[in-house]
Amino acid sequence: MEKYQASIKIMLKHGILDVQGKTVENSLHSIGFDTLQNVRIGKFVQLEVAAESPEKASELVGSACEKLIANPIIENYEIQIEKIK
Amino acid sequence: MEKYQASIKIMLKHGILDVQGKTVENSLHSIGFDTLQNVRIGKFVQLEVAAESPEKASELVGSACEKLIANPIIENYEIQIEKIK
Repeated sequence: MEKYQASIKIMLKHGILDVQGKTVENSLHSIGFDTLQNVRIGKFVQLEVAAESPEKASELVGSACEKLIANPIIENYEIQIEKIK
Repeated sequence: MEKYQASIKIMLKHGILDVQGKTVENSLHSIGFDTLQNVRIGKFVQLEVAAESPEKASELVGSACEKLIANPIIENYEIQIEKIK
């Protein structure tokens, strides 16, 4: 078994209103950051996974995302796997 | 003025207890994902910025992170700037 570092970006799907992003955007404008637009806020998850190959690691993390880490109904996720030396 | 897409990863600094990460880790273990360890949960922010150069864009986003997007006392952030075609 090798150890891998998984990095997961989770964002709301396009078309789903990002209330948190909109609120931060309004706050940014109110303190003078007028040139910042379309703020969208998601999650960034890092974890370590023991698996036989990067493919197995990615599969395992994907399954964990579907079941618990992300909400696949309203969120998209993107997994990156990197071997830990 | 050019338009840039900024992607910001925000993570708790090392040494600061990540309660949310620990909770997700425990939940993962309880549903059988025993090989997933050291879960850490941060934020991933995307926004568009109008600026004269990628350096100016990065500077502006850095300033917004310091003032509002991140909490620099307990969080580290990493900014990536990409030109929007």
